[in-house]
Amino acid sequence: MISVVILGAGNVATHLFKAFTKSDEVQVKTWYNRDIDKLKSYKNDVYITNNLALLKEADIYILAVSDDAISKLSSALPFENKFLVHTSGSVSVHTLDKKNRRGVLYPIQTLSKDAEIDFSNVPLCLETLEKTDLKTLKNLAEAIDSPYYKISTEQRLTLHLVAIFINNFTNQLYRIGHEIADAKHIDFNILKPLILETANKVQNMSPYLAQTGPAIRNDEKTIKKHLKLLENENYKEIYRLLTHSIQQTHGRKKL
Amino acid sequence: MISVVILGAGNVATHLFKAFTKSDEVQVKTWYNRDIDKLKSYKNDVYITNNLALLKEADIYILAVSDDAISKLSSALPFENKFLVHTSGSVSVHTLDKKNRRGVLYPIQTLSKDAEIDFSNVPLCLETLEKTDLKTLKNLAEAIDSPYYKISTEQRLTLHLVAIFINNFTNQLYRIGHEIADAKHIDFNILKPLILETANKVQNMSPYLAQTGPAIRNDEKTIKKHLKLLENENYKEIYRLLTHSIQQTHGRKKL
Ligand SMILES: NC(=O)c1ccc[n+]([C@@H]2O[C@H](COP(=O)([O-])OP(=O)(O)OC[C@H]3O[C@@H](n4cnc5c(N)ncnc54)[C@H](OP(=O)(O)O)[C@@H]3O)[C@@H](O)[C@H]2O)c1
Ligand SMILES: NC(=O)c1ccc[n+]([C@@H]2O[C@H](COP(=O)([O-])OP(=O)(O)OC[C@H]3O[C@@H](n4cnc5c(N)ncnc54)[C@H](OP(=O)(O)O)[C@@H]3O)[C@@H](O)[C@H]2O)c1
Repeated sequence: MISVVILGAGNVATHLFKAFTKSDEVQVKTWYNRDIDKLKSYKNDVYITNNLALLKEADIYILAVSDDAISKLSSALPFENKFLVHTSGSVSVHTLDKKNRRGVLYPIQTLSKDAEIDFSNVPLCLETLEKTDLKTLKNLAEAIDSPYYKISTEQRLTLHLVAIFINNFTNQLYRIGHEIADAKHIDFNILKPLILETANKVQNMSPYLAQTGPAIRNDEKTIKKHLKLLENENYKEIYRLLTHSIQQTHGRKKL
Repeated sequence: MISVVILGAGNVATHLFKAFTKSDEVQVKTWYNRDIDKLKSYKNDVYITNNLALLKEADIYILAVSDDAISKLSSALPFENKFLVHTSGSVSVHTLDKKNRRGVLYPIQTLSKDAEIDFSNVPLCLETLEKTDLKTLKNLAEAIDSPYYKISTEQRLTLHLVAIFINNFTNQLYRIGHEIADAKHIDFNILKPLILETANKVQNMSPYLAQTGPAIRNDEKTIKKHLKLLENENYKEIYRLLTHSIQQTHGRKKL
């Protein structure tokens, strides 16, 4: 049995709490948040508090709080030599106060409180300063059926950067598509199967091999037509830049 | 029973042939390709030919050939007043020779010969010059369980443009992610669940509401860190432009 204390009541904290509660091998000893109101609805399931002095003993203390709060909150903890992790993709492990043993448990997934997620689809990137602590994190990942990877700080920062491209930027392309469709009274639902299939395709095929369309075909007639159709200057620029990028990747000539 | 003749042996033609063959309500009378070798493996399932003079009579003739070949092939057909459609997103219906009744059957999906696809996930955009022909296309779509939409020429050109954003450009973002990960010896598999979840999320939530990350949070520290981490000038520019686009969409301040 692995015992944990969760600090924070946001997206990550809430999903972790649910995953831990489902597992027979994990026990949540305390759930802390500075604003206890956000934990009230869980008060029959777990010991909740907004007082750091009342945190119970546990194998792992998980700081699932905003990036900027990690340093201060870790310093405020009234104990030493326990095992502490944060959950951020972009914060160094050394940001945690060194009076405790330190590590990172970074879930590479987009987590929102109101969207359900199966933790077998949440890869966990693990990093610890001490080897024995890594074993504890591995056991925790296994207990909630998450795939896990030992990742260095540098790799984690890179992963976070890549996540921006394939999550935030991809989502913005969806948004642009939605906006352009709306303007012509086209139902965005028409495009949803294509969005899914595009993501499905690269599960078993490299994105390099999956590429199609006017850019890779060097179909200048269509590219020109599209640039003319686009009215928003920002979208025109995105079209040009990504077309150019595809052509560079595939050794086609420049626009 | 709807009878069809298919012209072309590429991605679209092959998927349509398979979908029609599965349906009890569609009969493929002839499958034509200029290069008959590509059809040889189907010769026990359907009448194949490379001779336009030998096409059998059918309710619909489907030209699933390259955009540039549509005009010439439609002119070369040795009959009149039949119902002819092409399958392109970017070619006008008027490109088809006017000696026949004309229409469009544009599948908004990424189709590759070797990837299986269920036609219930292939929305069909329908356009015809004559109203009675539209009914025929609707029946055909229903016979293969495809969702279908009546779409004007202008809407279809826009849809094709949107498809470039959410398919080709999204796939290029995956590719960039793959490349950046590879350079740091990070297994791309770690990122596949995030790719899927990003696509899943917008099936039930608008991309506007689904957005997260440093751009929308206006987290300049992280944005600067990422720009420093990116070595490729083209990728830096894509990062800047899409960050800016997210901030514009969400009324955040300019970079
Ligand atoms: N969401 C994701 O998809 C995701 C994925 C991977 C990693 N992460 C990382 O996980 C961490 C948490 O993200 P999240 O999405 O769960 O954030 P969130 O939903 O915004 O929740 C942030 C939590 O941090 C607490 N907090 C903020 N400032 C604090 C302070 N000064 N002292 C104490 N507590 C403070 C908030 O407390 P109040 O409730 O009192 O405001 C809240 O409970 C971040 O490091 C993030 O980078 C997030
Ligand atoms: N693939 C997709 O995801 C997709 C999605 C929506 C719409 N479309 C549209 O569907 C159409 C077909 O696309 P595709 O992906 O199936 O193309 P494809 O796989 O490249 O196949 C093209 C077919 O056109 C034939 N062809 C080319 N030039 C010809 C000519 N001058 N005369 C006669 N036949 C000729 C080729 O014949 P040979 O075999 O003899 O070379 C081949 O059978 C295009 O209009 C495309 O824009 C494609």
